[in-house]
Amino acid sequence: MVREVVTLEGHIIDSRVLGTVLDDVLAQGGQFKILEVHIGTTRDERSHARIEIAAENLDKMHELLEVVGKHGAIWYEAEDALLSPADMDGAFPEGFSSSTNQQTFVRHGGQWIEVRDQEMDCGIVYDTAASEFSCLPVIKIKKGQLVVMGEQGVKVVPFERQRAGGVFEFMNSEVSTEKPKHTIIRNCAMQMHAARQEGKKLLLVGGPAIVHTGAVEHVVHLIENGYIHVLFAGNALATHDIENALYGTSLGVYLDRATLSEGGHAHHIRAINTIRRCGGIAAAVEQGVLTSGIMYECVKHDVKTVLAASIRDDGPLPDVITDAMVAQDRMRDLVKEVGFALMVATGLHSIATGNLLPAWIPAVCVDISPSILTKLSDRGSFQTVGLVTDVEPFFRSLVAVLDEIEKG
Amino acid sequence: MVREVVTLEGHIIDSRVLGTVLDDVLAQGGQFKILEVHIGTTRDERSHARIEIAAENLDKMHELLEVVGKHGAIWYEAEDALLSPADMDGAFPEGFSSSTNQQTFVRHGGQWIEVRDQEMDCGIVYDTAASEFSCLPVIKIKKGQLVVMGEQGVKVVPFERQRAGGVFEFMNSEVSTEKPKHTIIRNCAMQMHAARQEGKKLLLVGGPAIVHTGAVEHVVHLIENGYIHVLFAGNALATHDIENALYGTSLGVYLDRATLSEGGHAHHIRAINTIRRCGGIAAAVEQGVLTSGIMYECVKHDVKTVLAASIRDDGPLPDVITDAMVAQDRMRDLVKEVGFALMVATGLHSIATGNLLPAWIPAVCVDISPSILTKLSDRGSFQTVGLVTDVEPFFRSLVAVLDEIEKG
Amino acid sequence: MVREVVTLEGHIIDSRVLGTVLDDVLAQGGQFKILEVHIGTTRDERSHARIEIAAENLDKMHELLEVVGKHGAIWYEAEDALLSPADMDGAFPEGFSSSTNQQTFVRHGGQWIEVRDQEMDCGIVYDTAASEFSCLPVIKIKKGQLVVMGEQGVKVVPFERQRAGGVFEFMNSEVSTEKPKHTIIRNCAMQMHAARQEGKKLLLVGGPAIVHTGAVEHVVHLIENGYIHVLFAGNALATHDIENALYGTSLGVYLDRATLSEGGHAHHIRAINTIRRCGGIAAAVEQGVLTSGIMYECVKHDVKTVLAASIRDDGPLPDVITDAMVAQDRMRDLVKEVGFALMVATGLHSIATGNLLPAWIPAVCVDISPSILTKLSDRGSFQTVGLVTDVEPFFRSLVAVLDEIEKG
Amino acid sequence: MVREVVTLEGHIIDSRVLGTVLDDVLAQGGQFKILEVHIGTTRDERSHARIEIAAENLDKMHELLEVVGKHGAIWYEAEDALLSPADMDGAFPEGFSSSTNQQTFVRHGGQWIEVRDQEMDCGIVYDTAASEFSCLPVIKIKKGQLVVMGEQGVKVVPFERQRAGGVFEFMNSEVSTEKPKHTIIRNCAMQMHAARQEGKKLLLVGGPAIVHTGAVEHVVHLIENGYIHVLFAGNALATHDIENALYGTSLGVYLDRATLSEGGHAHHIRAINTIRRCGGIAAAVEQGVLTSGIMYECVKHDVKTVLAASIRDDGPLPDVITDAMVAQDRMRDLVKEVGFALMVATGLHSIATGNLLPAWIPAVCVDISPSILTKLSDRGSFQTVGLVTDVEPFFRSLVAVLDEIEKG
Repeated sequence: MVREVVTLEGHIIDSRVLGTVLDDVLAQGGQFKILEVHIGTTRDERSHARIEIAAENLDKMHELLEVVGKHGAIWYEAEDALLSPADMDGAFPEGFSSSTNQQTFVRHGGQWIEVRDQEMDCGIVYDTAASEFSCLPVIKIKKGQLVVMGEQGVKVVPFERQRAGGVFEFMNSEVSTEKPKHTIIRNCAMQMHAARQEGKKLLLVGGPAIVHTGAVEHVVHLIENGYIHVLFAGNALATHDIENALYGTSLGVYLDRATLSEGGHAHHIRAINTIRRCGGIAAAVEQGVLTSGIMYECVKHDVKTVLAASIRDDGPLPDVITDAMVAQDRMRDLVKEVGFALMVATGLHSIATGNLLPAWIPAVCVDISPSILTKLSDRGSFQTVGLVTDVEPFFRSLVAVLDEIEKG
Repeated sequence: MVREVVTLEGHIIDSRVLGTVLDDVLAQGGQFKILEVHIGTTRDERSHARIEIAAENLDKMHELLEVVGKHGAIWYEAEDALLSPADMDGAFPEGFSSSTNQQTFVRHGGQWIEVRDQEMDCGIVYDTAASEFSCLPVIKIKKGQLVVMGEQGVKVVPFERQRAGGVFEFMNSEVSTEKPKHTIIRNCAMQMHAARQEGKKLLLVGGPAIVHTGAVEHVVHLIENGYIHVLFAGNALATHDIENALYGTSLGVYLDRATLSEGGHAHHIRAINTIRRCGGIAAAVEQGVLTSGIMYECVKHDVKTVLAASIRDDGPLPDVITDAMVAQDRMRDLVKEVGFALMVATGLHSIATGNLLPAWIPAVCVDISPSILTKLSDRGSFQTVGLVTDVEPFFRSLVAVLDEIEKG
Repeated sequence: MVREVVTLEGHIIDSRVLGTVLDDVLAQGGQFKILEVHIGTTRDERSHARIEIAAENLDKMHELLEVVGKHGAIWYEAEDALLSPADMDGAFPEGFSSSTNQQTFVRHGGQWIEVRDQEMDCGIVYDTAASEFSCLPVIKIKKGQLVVMGEQGVKVVPFERQRAGGVFEFMNSEVSTEKPKHTIIRNCAMQMHAARQEGKKLLLVGGPAIVHTGAVEHVVHLIENGYIHVLFAGNALATHDIENALYGTSLGVYLDRATLSEGGHAHHIRAINTIRRCGGIAAAVEQGVLTSGIMYECVKHDVKTVLAASIRDDGPLPDVITDAMVAQDRMRDLVKEVGFALMVATGLHSIATGNLLPAWIPAVCVDISPSILTKLSDRGSFQTVGLVTDVEPFFRSLVAVLDEIEKG
Repeated sequence: MVREVVTLEGHIIDSRVLGTVLDDVLAQGGQFKILEVHIGTTRDERSHARIEIAAENLDKMHELLEVVGKHGAIWYEAEDALLSPADMDGAFPEGFSSSTNQQTFVRHGGQWIEVRDQEMDCGIVYDTAASEFSCLPVIKIKKGQLVVMGEQGVKVVPFERQRAGGVFEFMNSEVSTEKPKHTIIRNCAMQMHAARQEGKKLLLVGGPAIVHTGAVEHVVHLIENGYIHVLFAGNALATHDIENALYGTSLGVYLDRATLSEGGHAHHIRAINTIRRCGGIAAAVEQGVLTSGIMYECVKHDVKTVLAASIRDDGPLPDVITDAMVAQDRMRDLVKEVGFALMVATGLHSIATGNLLPAWIPAVCVDISPSILTKLSDRGSFQTVGLVTDVEPFFRSLVAVLDEIEKG
């Protein structure tokens, strides 16, 4: 029998890592002996466990170590990660280590080094000069850069939900409409308020239903009160917000009467045309053409905005970044500063943001359709709290709770 | 050529009946000559038009008259409706006239007599003693009762949406999530307030998601403020409301924390058991066992309640009517007094209510799933305004707007 | 420190029970020592583990034993379950043990006795004469019957998914539309074929969308080929099936042309009336009035049928059981013989069936709306495999695969 | 009173244009006198009607003419359309005439000239050299080009559904799941077969659920049998198709077993990396790396493909066009040749295609979520037939029916 000792650290009881590791060892045909379990006695003290695992041969042992390594088990006798130079621009060598959105360490020179710029579905490259590992999208790799290969010497530390507190305590594996909505919204508000107090940047990712459902005034309120510092959206949100500012309609429907405007189907393209004539949104604000709405407030309050194009766009507005990779890169930069993400009524931009966000940044995704939330989860952004509810009433409640919190 | 003169009356321009009739005549191979069009010049003045239609033979003319009769065209030369005695209990003669939920007149003795108790999918029976026609469900017909046969002498007057005002002005053929929600909710509130001012009875048809989403407090507020006089629901709404009153949970989830209660999965059956031990909901209120919630308020405010059983019921509560036909009949009685219906988060009870409501009673159906609203519409309750939104935030907004309206 | 030894038995590794128990002990502040782990080496050999758990006092120990008992840990030093006589008809004593749909044992006279008629949300009563425990719905309890109280001496053995094989291997916690549909349908077919080969009864629970989507021919094929022995449905499925047989329409839409029939909105009520005139479905078949369709085949092939009324029913057909509790009881009887359940396009009847089915009976629930499947899961029928797909194409594929399997 | 004579032409009875015009005249306070109605007696003969309309003043008359002009009423005394030169690049003059996707004529030099390249939400520009009007997206307008202004001299001829035949006969305003699916699929197949026989190009617009649900083999069959000549998709469809070809998984789920692959979450990024290493999809086919699947068949059968990027893309594949406006333009070019469009499981690309397609090109949009279809319709692509069904079973049925049709 081959034997190795692995160590588990962190809040291993809350996150059920210990039991999972033991079960996996047995399920894979291994055996285990618990050498030591130390349970943290306060909320902040971390637990650790040392387990000897046994396998019938070296191959089997490597399988076992790989399996338990995924749950965060550290094999101190681990070898360094393998590095291989990229043999071409824009593609990794076959067999590269593919990143997740979880905290990751790479063993190098006998040390576990935390990976920077954590992002899922990237490669991990080594900067020899800085002695740093960081995630890099495939499109950006240059020939000669050192790429981490395979699973050896790579350790993933799963995000611990229970200890996270805040909105994550409400996290559910199941997306359901039958939840106490106000409780969840209140918790979301508390988390947003706390993030603002701690000086973190808050991100809103939004779709045009924000305008269609009549929630512009609430988002304006959030911007004015310092709850939105970064905005990711598309041409549609901006266009319909401006349509509403100029014509009082969204998709041609009067928002204050819920009736269709005669000729209103053309309002959005007229709005785009008007902004194009001004030379852009900020210019339209300066020229006094655009005097209200979300985009107006973003200009006034210096909200950092990425308007990313999609192929269904009319126009688009001059401010829209038409190249997806350029837009993605701008989002990638801004996401680094974000401490809380609120994603509302846009599958496209929410999944895009979920792709870029590390697992430990709290994120709430709101949509009236459960299927958007299921898709987000299917694509690996399982750390996002999914809330199935309607856009305008959601923002109305959120704003009311935030106002209450501020009043104390 | 056979020629006949038909008359259209009512708000025939607003409801586009005139054009529809002319198009149909032409489409069916007939010809027409407009003899007279008189347009009402005030909102209340009705319009009328006299049209001569021509067909190549009598058969064709009868077809034409049948088609245009459906749009409310009156054929003054009409013959009386045919009556036939029921030949058995519990079934109409084959060829009976099947009713809709629209206002209907039957020609008898050369007179057009309005049908009473209008309800879709019934037969129309004649009470010789009272000289009255009324709708009767098939299950209730007794041998010998006189039943209206075929289409002759039966005239349906379609409900005129545009003139109806209030919430009906927002009526859309399309069920969409992308509508200005607060505008629609505000209009719904105004209609409810007006109905209450006019002394009409308001009906709430509700599903258990009212409790699951945390909306009990809002419904309690509505009852206390005189906005709910009749309640149609099932065992589930009552059970989870009582579970919430007794345990603070709904389906075992703490509503103020959004977390699962240990052992909470049994709370609803324990709640049922407790009420069964008391002998019923009113008895539980009297004994001080049930002291809050929707059902408590219904007892306290004398809301007329029908709790209709379904086969998925646990228990059920002693107050639940287990026979569907008995429950339906009780609903049929109560619906007669209703001037406004609010149907929330229950496909089953909403469709049941839609089956019983005449087309001219304003009804708003709220559900987070568009498919429920599409089903309601597929089943003929097309006069219902469908609102795709979330339950708790809907009630929260509704209550806030009603409070504003009352404050003036 | 108080110490007790508990034993885990069964396929504890596959079902991750061991790790879960250890984690729970630690999470609740207890400690553990693994005395023995024996892993079954063949698929059929069961594993067992003996664990000593320690708590700081007796109260804490009882908590621990309760928690681990839920995962199937047996405390051999367990005391007998407490029994208390019912003090009235129709309600259990407060504090009764509420049943789940999992296999359950009650300790009595030092023996673990398996509970019969396992069904969720019931009480457990003891039949002194037969020395048997069985589940009993609250409505049926009679004064004086002995009822199991609390958690002492009650052991639940969770259903082991991985070992179950067949369709259960595909079980997912997440309801998603993005799954390989044909693979899942093929597996469902294989399970149905195996169940038929083993002489088990197959249950179809169906909603009217079976008819609306044009799947009648496929269900007829299943009946003719011995894949449906029991049918649970409502008035709507039967009515629209008969409407289709008599008129070629469903809800007035011609199924072979997908166009609306003139006057078709009355077809379903005429169909009901016709069957009422005959005296019932079987009588209509006998009289040659009903000559095709699902209900016709059910009569011809002696499929045991429960048509349960709901308050939204028109008519209803004479065969419909109008009292929900009577219908539920008839379903309860028939469910006892069922070895596989296929539930299609009916939230109402599927949840009703899920309430009655023990967890170990394989069940597949098909609906185009994910929310129905989420509701089913929220209500405790988590063992059901949810398949989000469309009704007619589902049956078309299912029938094709079954035909292939039969041809070998 | 001001009087004008307008003429209606085309299949005005079938499309209910006559009645609509008359109703609108009355509703707007005008009067009418029918001078002549000639009904086409064969399917191909067109009808016409001449109507004198009267208004109290010239302003009112212009309003009336504008309203009835939208229904295709021709005012022979019409003045020419107003043209104005663009005063800058990339934006129209304010007040430009905004195009729809319906056939449109512009009056110029007393002649009605049909507009080319019909596309919604564009401006209409006049090419003096060619004496042609055509639609132009706002982004493409150059200073000095002549732009049609306002509504004067612009006539829209609505697409006539009833006469269209084929799949359009099944068109429903309501999106519903409760339709006879096979009938609709069969009709779709017949239309596709007819289009192929007539030498038209067929377009598939597809999302990744085609791969996730296991429908690759069916799409391959369609390509091989000449039913797909153009493909619009994103990086995701191509990536998961290639993931499936290389690893047998989609999003890491084995399609033939419906179980998650260990390490499978990285398969899609490995697939992208592999194709990037090859230099593109065609190169990967050439090098023998990619040997099956949809993208492979597209290369082999020379299907014209637009893979348009979105911001949520991983990678992307080298073949993906990252600039949305470049991709849109390539789609715009290819759409001109298309005679039938099948849009499956992609809201993004379907709405993008709907934006580009003229109303008279038959289009079927398939999605399991009704909300996608409602959105498509809300955005003006109301001519698209919406089919709520599941992807894999849809393609399975479609292929089977096409095979039957070919066998005759």
